[in-house]
Amino acid sequence: MKAEFINPFLEATMSVLKTMAFLEPIPGNPYIKKGGAASGDISGIVGITGEAEGSLCLSFSKGCILFIISKMLGEEQKEINEEVKDAVGELTNMISGDSRRRLQEIGHSFQGAIPSVISGPEHEVKHITRGPILSIPFTTQAGDFIVEVCFK
Amino acid sequence: MKAEFINPFLEATMSVLKTMAFLEPIPGNPYIKKGGAASGDISGIVGITGEAEGSLCLSFSKGCILFIISKMLGEEQKEINEEVKDAVGELTNMISGDSRRRLQEIGHSFQGAIPSVISGPEHEVKHITRGPILSIPFTTQAGDFIVEVCFK
Repeated sequence: MKAEFINPFLEATMSVLKTMAFLEPIPGNPYIKKGGAASGDISGIVGITGEAEGSLCLSFSKGCILFIISKMLGEEQKEINEEVKDAVGELTNMISGDSRRRLQEIGHSFQGAIPSVISGPEHEVKHITRGPILSIPFTTQAGDFIVEVCFK
Repeated sequence: MKAEFINPFLEATMSVLKTMAFLEPIPGNPYIKKGGAASGDISGIVGITGEAEGSLCLSFSKGCILFIISKMLGEEQKEINEEVKDAVGELTNMISGDSRRRLQEIGHSFQGAIPSVISGPEHEVKHITRGPILSIPFTTQAGDFIVEVCFK
């Protein structure tokens, strides 16, 4: 995992949430982990190909995502319903696209696949790679979420 | 979704399970659905890019996957542990690769991303696409599993 890959994903997450949900989540220190899984109540996952094969995953607690999507849709969301799942898919797509645009600017070309949204209390997402996984934690006033990126 | 896309995924699933787990699952009738989600206790997901962007997802009930992975590893598996998750990742990767090889043979070129494995009782996987989703159900003596494919 190249260090220069960290900022495009971090900045894309901040930028998309600011634009879409008027939200400024506080990023924690990004760290590199070997193995392990992200857990959450809802996750957006999208595959990446091109210069290297990879995967991008955003995992949110229920409280955190209902807060974010309520702000995004301008209407209070009380449950993880179809509208919330679609909005998580849209956020995942936008963060994937914006990250890849930023990577392109520094000379790295990637394509994005179709995102999937996983829902289910405390599910785990494990990236199947022997390589390092970049983990970027974020804090909002309604709870934490995590952005994970891995490349082969 | 082109009709000629169905067989590569169906045949790759049969072939990989036969080779890796000496198992011959019985395929049901593939069908095309609009929206909806697959549910399972463990799923392998991998993004696809190239001629079109897409996603491949395999979702298994707990009983079904423990049966398959026990046969694959030659040792009885009683819980969805790390070894089972890694084996689901490996199956997903192999089915993705074999499907893409079969698609290549009929003139369609695709790349695969890094697979992710989702675990959590009765989680749901929703593909974020307005397009059709190809759903291929399979039956084994220990329960059913489903292979879903979507393209943009």
